[in-house]
Amino acid sequence: MTTDPIPLAQALIRCRSVTPADGGALDVVQRALEPLGFTCTRLVYGPDDYRVDNLFARRGTAGPHLCYAGHTDVVPPGDVAAWTDDPFSGEVRDGLLFGRGACDMKGGIAAFIAGLTDYLAAHPDHPGSISLLITGDEEDRSVDGTAKVLEWMQANGQVPDMALVGEPTSRRALGDTIKIGRRGSLTGRITVQGKQGHSAYPALADNPIHRLVAALGPLLAAPLDNGSEFFPPTTLQVTGFDVGNRASNVIPATARAMLNIRFNDHHTSATLTERLHAALRAAGCAYALDVDCSGESFLTRPGPFVDALSRAIARSTGVTPALDTGGGTSDARFIARYCPVAEFGAVGATLHQVNEHASVAELRRLAAAYQTIIAEILG
Amino acid sequence: MTTDPIPLAQALIRCRSVTPADGGALDVVQRALEPLGFTCTRLVYGPDDYRVDNLFARRGTAGPHLCYAGHTDVVPPGDVAAWTDDPFSGEVRDGLLFGRGACDMKGGIAAFIAGLTDYLAAHPDHPGSISLLITGDEEDRSVDGTAKVLEWMQANGQVPDMALVGEPTSRRALGDTIKIGRRGSLTGRITVQGKQGHSAYPALADNPIHRLVAALGPLLAAPLDNGSEFFPPTTLQVTGFDVGNRASNVIPATARAMLNIRFNDHHTSATLTERLHAALRAAGCAYALDVDCSGESFLTRPGPFVDALSRAIARSTGVTPALDTGGGTSDARFIARYCPVAEFGAVGATLHQVNEHASVAELRRLAAAYQTIIAEILG
Ligand SMILES: [Zn+2]
Ligand SMILES: [Zn+2]
Repeated sequence: MTTDPIPLAQALIRCRSVTPADGGALDVVQRALEPLGFTCTRLVYGPDDYRVDNLFARRGTAGPHLCYAGHTDVVPPGDVAAWTDDPFSGEVRDGLLFGRGACDMKGGIAAFIAGLTDYLAAHPDHPGSISLLITGDEEDRSVDGTAKVLEWMQANGQVPDMALVGEPTSRRALGDTIKIGRRGSLTGRITVQGKQGHSAYPALADNPIHRLVAALGPLLAAPLDNGSEFFPPTTLQVTGFDVGNRASNVIPATARAMLNIRFNDHHTSATLTERLHAALRAAGCAYALDVDCSGESFLTRPGPFVDALSRAIARSTGVTPALDTGGGTSDARFIARYCPVAEFGAVGATLHQVNEHASVAELRRLAAAYQTIIAEILG
Repeated sequence: MTTDPIPLAQALIRCRSVTPADGGALDVVQRALEPLGFTCTRLVYGPDDYRVDNLFARRGTAGPHLCYAGHTDVVPPGDVAAWTDDPFSGEVRDGLLFGRGACDMKGGIAAFIAGLTDYLAAHPDHPGSISLLITGDEEDRSVDGTAKVLEWMQANGQVPDMALVGEPTSRRALGDTIKIGRRGSLTGRITVQGKQGHSAYPALADNPIHRLVAALGPLLAAPLDNGSEFFPPTTLQVTGFDVGNRASNVIPATARAMLNIRFNDHHTSATLTERLHAALRAAGCAYALDVDCSGESFLTRPGPFVDALSRAIARSTGVTPALDTGGGTSDARFIARYCPVAEFGAVGATLHQVNEHASVAELRRLAAAYQTIIAEILG
C-alpha cells in the first residue's frame, strides 16, 4: 500500500497561508501527524502585528533523531487575474497540481508525510526518532520561525542529530540535486558625504559620486574569490546608486549605494563588512555603512549523513544527486548552527510564479524517495 | 571733469530685470547713450513666453571698431528676507553700492558709460567707432541675446574688430585679471540599459550600474589633460547617478548618469563626445548618450588687442593684469566666433549672492580704466 500525497497537498494549498498568515495549514499538518503517533507542540512567536505559528512534532525519543524541516507559508499569488485557476484551489489537471505552494513547499510537506506514513506502516518499531519542524515564517522575515523553534528545541533537549529541509532542490529531474550548503547573503547600504559645489569649480567641492565610483570600481573589477570546493564564486551586485540631483552643473553633497553580496565559505559577514570599509576608506570617503546579513554561508561537508541521503535518493529515483550550494537562502542556514543539514525536494520550476504547479507523478515519487531516505537513515 | 558712474548704476539696479525680464533697464542705457551720439537699435528675439530685449548702439562708422558687450539681466535675488536692503534699491552705504547686479554687471555697464562719456568729452572727433552690445538674456538661456544680436550685426555690416566684455573679472584688486578665454562646457546624460534580475543569480542578469561604474571609473581616475598654455586642466564632474531601485536583491534594468565637463583648448565638444562614447563602448554598455554643449572653449591669444588692454589697465590702475581663462562661461564665447574678445571688469566677490554689492570707489576707478582703454585702442 502506498499513501497518495495529493489529497494532503490539496488540503494544504486550500489554506490561505500567505506569509505570515497560517490559514489553518498547521492544523492540517498536525491532524495528519497525530494519528501517526507524533507529539505535537505549537509555538507562537512574534510581535502583535506579526504573529507566527509554528509546529514541532516528534515521534520517539531515542537517537538517532532525524528532523524534517519545512514551511507552510507561501508568497502572495500576485496578479490573481493572471492565474488560470484560483491560486488556492489545488486543482489537478493533466497530471499537474496547481496552486500557490504546490512546489514551494506544501507539495513537498505532503510528500514527506505520505512517505513517512508508509515508512511507519512498514517499520512500526523503528529505531531512533523522527521530528518535523514546520514554520509559518520562511518567505518574508524568517525571524519568528525556524530560528526561534530551534532555540526552543535546544532549551527542551530536542536538537536533532541531522536535518533534512524539504525545499524544492531538484533542477530538471527528481533527485538530480541536493543542497549541502547555501551561500550567505549580505546587504550593504552606503551613504557618502561630500561637499556641494559648482561643476565649474570642483576644487572647492568634494564629489561624493566620484568617491563612490572609486570605492566600488575595485570591488567590481575582480571577483572576490574563484569559488571553493563546494561553492561557486562569491558575487557582489550593486543594486542601487542614487543621488537625486537634477542640476547638471551642481556637484551634489551626498551619494547613496546599495549592494548585495552572495558569499561562499571563504567569507563571513564580518570579513566582508571589513572589506567594504577598507574600499570606502581607500577612496577617501566620509561615509556611513549599514550592513544587514540575512544569513552566513554554511556547508555540510560530505560525510555519513550526506552519503546516506545520496544513496537513498539514487536507489529510489535512479538519479545520483549532485551536491549543490547554489541559489538563494533557506531556513537551512539556521539549522546548520545545530546539526548537519541538507536539502532535498521536488523540481521547483514554477515556484513563486503565476500558475505555480507540481507534477502529481513527481510528488508521488518524492514520497517514495522520502520513505527510502528515512529507512536508509533510521534503518 | 569726471563722470560719476554711481547714479546710472543705481538707476539700472532699480529696474527689476530678473532674467529674461528687462524691467526698463535697456531704456535707461539707451537714454544714457543717445545724448552721446549713439545710434540705438532694439532687437527683440525669442518665443512668445520668453521675449528677450537687446540693444545695439554704435557711434561712428569707421574702423577700428571696438565693441563693449554686457548684460542688464540679473539672477533672481533668492531669499529676499536675507537681504539687508531691498535687492532693487541701489542703496549706497559705507562706500558700498548694494543691489542685485551691483557687480554682475549693472555697475560695470554704468562704469563703461561713465568712462565713455569722459573719453568722448576729451575726444569728440575720435578715430574709429565704438559700439555697445547689451543683452537681456545672459543669465539663463543665452539663446536670444548676444548670439542673435551678433547674427544681426553680421547681416548688417556691424561686426567689430575687437570686443571687450565687461564681466567682473578682477579677483582681489581692480585690474589684477583679464580673461582672454573661457573653458567650454559640455553636459552629458547617459542611460545604460541592462537586464533586470535577482542578485542571487547575476549570471542571468546584466547589471547596468556595474557597466556605468566601469565606464566612469577610467574617466575619473586620471585627469583628461594637464592644462594648456593659458588654461587649467579640463575637469569632468559626474553630477548625477540614479537608478531608483528599492529592492536590495533586485538587479535593476536601467542606470542613469549626468556629467559636466569644463574643457580647455585641448578638446572640443566633438572630441569629448567621442571620448564618452569610447568609454561606454569599452565597458560593453548598451547605452544612450545625450550631449549638450553650452559653449566651446575659446582663446584670444595675446596680440595687439590683449597687449593694448593690458597696457591701459596697468597705466590706469597700477596693476598689471594676469591673463586668465578660469571660471564659468560668459557671452564672450559667442563673440569669439567673430573677432578677438577679452573680458575685464570689477571684483565680482559677491556676484549672485545675497547682499550683492560693489565698491563705489572701485566703480569710479573702473570708469577711469575703461576711459584709458578706449583711448589706448582708438587713440
Ligand atoms: Zn520555500
Ligand atoms: Zn554676468
